[in-house]
Amino acid sequence: MTVGTLVLLRHGESEWNVKNLFTGWVDVDLTARGEDEARRGGELLVAQGILPDVVHTSLQRRAIRTAQLSLETCDRHWIPVRRSWRLNERHYGALQGKDKKQTLAEYGEEQFMKWRRSYDTPPPPLPDDAEFSQVHDPRYAELPGELRPRSECLKDVVARMLPYWYDRVVPDLRAGRTVLVAAHGNSLRGLVKHLDGISDADIAALNIPTGMPLRYDLDADLRPTNPGGTYLDPAAATAAAAAVAAQGR
Amino acid sequence: MTVGTLVLLRHGESEWNVKNLFTGWVDVDLTARGEDEARRGGELLVAQGILPDVVHTSLQRRAIRTAQLSLETCDRHWIPVRRSWRLNERHYGALQGKDKKQTLAEYGEEQFMKWRRSYDTPPPPLPDDAEFSQVHDPRYAELPGELRPRSECLKDVVARMLPYWYDRVVPDLRAGRTVLVAAHGNSLRGLVKHLDGISDADIAALNIPTGMPLRYDLDADLRPTNPGGTYLDPAAATAAAAAVAAQGR
Repeated sequence: MTVGTLVLLRHGESEWNVKNLFTGWVDVDLTARGEDEARRGGELLVAQGILPDVVHTSLQRRAIRTAQLSLETCDRHWIPVRRSWRLNERHYGALQGKDKKQTLAEYGEEQFMKWRRSYDTPPPPLPDDAEFSQVHDPRYAELPGELRPRSECLKDVVARMLPYWYDRVVPDLRAGRTVLVAAHGNSLRGLVKHLDGISDADIAALNIPTGMPLRYDLDADLRPTNPGGTYLDPAAATAAAAAVAAQGR
Repeated sequence: MTVGTLVLLRHGESEWNVKNLFTGWVDVDLTARGEDEARRGGELLVAQGILPDVVHTSLQRRAIRTAQLSLETCDRHWIPVRRSWRLNERHYGALQGKDKKQTLAEYGEEQFMKWRRSYDTPPPPLPDDAEFSQVHDPRYAELPGELRPRSECLKDVVARMLPYWYDRVVPDLRAGRTVLVAAHGNSLRGLVKHLDGISDADIAALNIPTGMPLRYDLDADLRPTNPGGTYLDPAAATAAAAAVAAQGR
């Protein structure tokens, strides 16, 4: 029996997706195409009659604006909003701001893929005085220093994301709400890993495309009755996921 | 001593402001000019170093988008968001969707001004089957029927807005936060009436312009140390308030 409907939405194309830079916690905006993707996400929600009752976002502009534009499109701009740094993108450490192709050329395929896709190897930490450090960002000012990452692997993301899933998202689902989570490639990969019970090794091959709503129907144990989830536009999602996997090439 | 900073922001120009129609609970969008006003509001917040820590909005698109655009402009898009129907515009009853100038011509100056500005005379109720009724709007579905207005005078607005002020906004102020309230001409007139202790008669003459941040510094009793508040751009606000007063002419 399905007790809750969860919709995951990775932000639309960002300025740094286009420039092929590692972004992480750097707070870049959507491109015009990313805005269109977000609105298209809202149209898919309308078309399939999946209307969110509450939205959870990261603290990052590209996810916040994606949520807002999708919800404006499906006339759900008025629903309650909850935000947390725990839904943020993976902190990419010293790679933040670096060109993906150049990083691949400089460090080679093996190191590049380890940083991008290994489960438990974070990139080198970002120094606090680096241009793209978030150490002095006011949105994280209330977090104790030890919670503010200087670099993260996907395992780190799962560890800081899951408490938010259990404590904030699950209660909304248990209350019978349709829940939209607007977040990032890696915070959503971490959540999908948890939901579908994907192994540490197999998660490397999973890519989530931008701006494509992914529906999970959850049972009373908060496990999917549709394992792997259901993209609202499956053909577009398959094509887009292949493009994500090819980044840096 | 100032214990809290409150910023009131009436939504930017809406589609129906331009058409000179009574809007009330009808959920119209901002115009391009209204979007610019909202961004300009954000620029004024930056220029004066007044950065909101939390935002409260109505459930209406024009206020929600005004808040969002202002906050994106001052890099505060990530702050906590709280929303309530209690901050909505006054429900204009049977006048919703009607032309202001035509209503003035049809009913005469006395009746027109009574509906617009008398404290305790609501317009005739809007029938539930009327085009611009919100009776079947999902955003109000959880409200008991007796809370859903069919028409309101300003006194009614004050009565339903004040519980939200006391229970939700004041605690944020007491916690030392700078609070942005993005709402509407009449819900904000009601709040200003309360803050400044304006009489039922005198509130008729008070007009709040669109898209102009109005700062109140509040003491330990939540009363302004700057009575009447301080517009961040006083000259523009004076000119705009005069234009509001002249509507329907």
